[in-house]
Amino acid sequence: MSAETMRRVLIVGGVAGGASCAARLRRLDERADIHIFERGPHVSFANCGLPYYIGDVIPREEDLLVAGPQIFEKRFRIHVHANTEAVAIDRAAGELRVRDLTTGGERSERFDHLVLSPGASPIRPPLPGIDRPGIFTLRNIPDSVTIREWIAGRRAKSAVIVGGGFIGLEMAENLARRGLEVTVVEMLNQVMPPFDPEMAEYVAAELRAQGVRLALGDGVAAFEEGPGGNILVKTASGAEYAGDMVVLSIGVRPDTALAKAAGLELGPRGGIKTDDQMRTSDPRIFAIGDAVEVRDWVTGAPVLIPLAGPANRQGRIAADALCGRDSKFRGTQGTAICGIFELQAAATGASEKALRRAEFTDFETLALHPNNHAGYYPGAEKIHMKIIFRTSDGLLLGAQAVGRAGVDRRIDVIAALIQKHGTVFDLEESELCYAPQFGTAKDAINFAGMAAANVLRGDVALAHWHEPAQEGTLFLDVRSPEEFAGGHVAGALNIPLETLRDRLTEIPAGADIRAYCAVGIRGYLATRVLFQNGIPARNLSGGFHSAPAKMRA
Amino acid sequence: MSAETMRRVLIVGGVAGGASCAARLRRLDERADIHIFERGPHVSFANCGLPYYIGDVIPREEDLLVAGPQIFEKRFRIHVHANTEAVAIDRAAGELRVRDLTTGGERSERFDHLVLSPGASPIRPPLPGIDRPGIFTLRNIPDSVTIREWIAGRRAKSAVIVGGGFIGLEMAENLARRGLEVTVVEMLNQVMPPFDPEMAEYVAAELRAQGVRLALGDGVAAFEEGPGGNILVKTASGAEYAGDMVVLSIGVRPDTALAKAAGLELGPRGGIKTDDQMRTSDPRIFAIGDAVEVRDWVTGAPVLIPLAGPANRQGRIAADALCGRDSKFRGTQGTAICGIFELQAAATGASEKALRRAEFTDFETLALHPNNHAGYYPGAEKIHMKIIFRTSDGLLLGAQAVGRAGVDRRIDVIAALIQKHGTVFDLEESELCYAPQFGTAKDAINFAGMAAANVLRGDVALAHWHEPAQEGTLFLDVRSPEEFAGGHVAGALNIPLETLRDRLTEIPAGADIRAYCAVGIRGYLATRVLFQNGIPARNLSGGFHSAPAKMRA
Repeated sequence: MSAETMRRVLIVGGVAGGASCAARLRRLDERADIHIFERGPHVSFANCGLPYYIGDVIPREEDLLVAGPQIFEKRFRIHVHANTEAVAIDRAAGELRVRDLTTGGERSERFDHLVLSPGASPIRPPLPGIDRPGIFTLRNIPDSVTIREWIAGRRAKSAVIVGGGFIGLEMAENLARRGLEVTVVEMLNQVMPPFDPEMAEYVAAELRAQGVRLALGDGVAAFEEGPGGNILVKTASGAEYAGDMVVLSIGVRPDTALAKAAGLELGPRGGIKTDDQMRTSDPRIFAIGDAVEVRDWVTGAPVLIPLAGPANRQGRIAADALCGRDSKFRGTQGTAICGIFELQAAATGASEKALRRAEFTDFETLALHPNNHAGYYPGAEKIHMKIIFRTSDGLLLGAQAVGRAGVDRRIDVIAALIQKHGTVFDLEESELCYAPQFGTAKDAINFAGMAAANVLRGDVALAHWHEPAQEGTLFLDVRSPEEFAGGHVAGALNIPLETLRDRLTEIPAGADIRAYCAVGIRGYLATRVLFQNGIPARNLSGGFHSAPAKMRA
Repeated sequence: MSAETMRRVLIVGGVAGGASCAARLRRLDERADIHIFERGPHVSFANCGLPYYIGDVIPREEDLLVAGPQIFEKRFRIHVHANTEAVAIDRAAGELRVRDLTTGGERSERFDHLVLSPGASPIRPPLPGIDRPGIFTLRNIPDSVTIREWIAGRRAKSAVIVGGGFIGLEMAENLARRGLEVTVVEMLNQVMPPFDPEMAEYVAAELRAQGVRLALGDGVAAFEEGPGGNILVKTASGAEYAGDMVVLSIGVRPDTALAKAAGLELGPRGGIKTDDQMRTSDPRIFAIGDAVEVRDWVTGAPVLIPLAGPANRQGRIAADALCGRDSKFRGTQGTAICGIFELQAAATGASEKALRRAEFTDFETLALHPNNHAGYYPGAEKIHMKIIFRTSDGLLLGAQAVGRAGVDRRIDVIAALIQKHGTVFDLEESELCYAPQFGTAKDAINFAGMAAANVLRGDVALAHWHEPAQEGTLFLDVRSPEEFAGGHVAGALNIPLETLRDRLTEIPAGADIRAYCAVGIRGYLATRVLFQNGIPARNLSGGFHSAPAKMRA
């Protein structure tokens, strides 16, 4: 083997993307000289498991080590340089400057190709008191060990989580599981920012039911020392929340310093810019993972989506590209799931608010609450679903779901269909696993498709709960008198579906009729009866189950 | 409304398809005069729940009634004629002859359109003794009540199930749950006929572990009275199995008598033939559900697939067609799932044996055993998967999976991709829900796609366990010596992957090398090392986990 073909590939960062890239490269090229430089002590660790290690769900630190350096060395002949930080790239010389964090010594490493997989850092806003002891972020195993030690050493009994995103809520659950009183402070008016607010509300309700205090719509202003030596989190609204510890989970920022200093191009969102083979503006340098800007599969916009799955995939693609293959990264759908106590909350594709922010208007949304499996089989649970689709052609744009079971499965099916440019008409025709303990003969997915297709075919017009009532708006409750008595929309007229055909004359002419039932099915039937009798009416998406608390009487 | 436009639509059969058709028709046509004729006492009952009612999982008979006649009458103004059998169709006169099974009286009902949804009957083979008391089939609620009464009245302690398909195994589980000793007699050498034999073996193992006796590869020859007054099931092989009751679940036969007598065309498989709008050879008559022949989505062949989901969909399509809409039935993938004690077994698309039977050769299969969620999160379970794909272009043809969790979800994703003509390359790129308790960053689906794509890209060649060894075959076990000592293929050479690069000279030149590890990953790595060193080798699909018992030493 000549030295020429034995190319030297250096990989900066050895967690998800970097480790995948290195292993794939070895499989494709037995001769390459492959080195991973990792700032931390561990390569290929399970960063998604950190909150659960803190929560004692994952019992041992070593459980988090997916593949140790020995595996890389022996199985793949990949050289792992842990505790070694990449500090500069000399593109002209083809050299990476690295620092051994144990000794402080620096050296230069020659490369033919360089793959940057530096990840993203938890944001630590420059607030007064931010450097007080007991204010943590969570990125790696040492962080989680530090948090565990703090909890044990201080016998922590309370915590304030700043930021109600996925990691914040996973931390809230895990600290609550360890018996801490937990407060989540979130600047937005909702938890789970990738979700639309009405869907996030199910998650908020579960958190509250589990004893987690939520302070929504309020930003942190400062951290001070509390009376008992704990930390006082002061907010913009003037509120104060005390905790024996604080976890910052506001979000992450791509680690682009190295790339930027080397003059590599960044994208509009501040991530490293690459082509669809993960090549940066320097063709010898690739970049993958959370530091990279990707194309949103649905909107086409450049986005930063820090997720492990896409990072792994990008690692493979960079390795393929290094070997002259034409693999391409298709973009990211942002498919994600979060467990919150007994709930599963998952999403894929675009949210309604993301579409509105992008001033995209050619879409409709649909709320529904189907069972995860046949209602007649014990243990059925409702799945609260929202699907978003293009009005002009039914293209699936996004979906969100929250429930106690079967949420992952339905979002995965929709994710697969979005990947294949599927439409709501495809949801109608999906043929999915059915036995009474696993689904319904018309699956939640089919229901979503039928209801959406009915809209697009003009068989039903939808109304939405967030539409303000206007002059002439009539909320028509078509449930039974018993259901109506148990709670209804203020001012609604109750005409049960079963009697509607005989009571058409009670409906005022020219009204803006918004029919609703419990979940939307009888409401749909009612609008069909009305429509065929010459009375235009719309069905309130999701039925009374989707009605905001403030509208209920 | 003139009488002319108030058309009269009669529907024969009021369970899945018939009920869906009637309700959809009402939604589309408020004026139609719609009648359902149902031979049994119930319309729209949960036939898939019957085994679980027998097993006391579903506690009450009324739980099985999805929608009673009152719902049909009041909500939909659909007239339900229960206990009323359709006995003849007079196509020329446009009349259906029906018999009231309570009174025995007959009458004729005029129709503009007729929809046949007669279903399929459990097969009762004309064997000696078949009419003995205590030999049951299971089709409707009265059948399940009869079986429950027999168990209670006879204090049944044992049962023989004839037929190891889905319903037979559901009955086996439910009778075992009630404390009966259960024997399943199945003519094939495997349970679960839609599955390939090596996948069905996981199900058989679970049945045996739960105490169910399996008599495979043996057909029933006769039923006799046993010594204690119980039933003696005599088989072709000469074996005898005694039970206090027998359940026949050999399969079902489409109820085509009515259609046939009326001269409607049947298909090559003996079901009623329809076009893709469910119209029979008489354009005024539609047929849907288990009695109808459909097109297999994957092979294009005419098939009989008695499943609730497609029946419901066909009902909707027939109603659409009746209203001049252009909805079409796309065919059936045969997606199905069965719970067997703690296992889930699911499949979609074509099986390997179905493809071989059709003499289709352009396909490859892949076995794998990924975890349902991250191995580092407690409670991970293996999913035994098999995917089948077209060699020429990677088109997904079918998939089967068995495991304790997450099986439904993976088969549903593949079902959705098969629906959209997806390929194994799509599996590679699927972006699915991941958090450690819900999946892996590279999901089982991604693993399947990567492994299959590696085959199609020529990066690895697969060997299969069912391939007979030949002169020069070398089984190369690349696991650790400890794993090797715990069980291996008879005659295998053990060279752990980690030492393979240094021990290439130990491999005999020109051998037919079949490498294997535990599940196929290290085996793949080994073939890459070998291949790049000029040594052709194949990876045994599924690894040692897929090795048949007879090959193990």
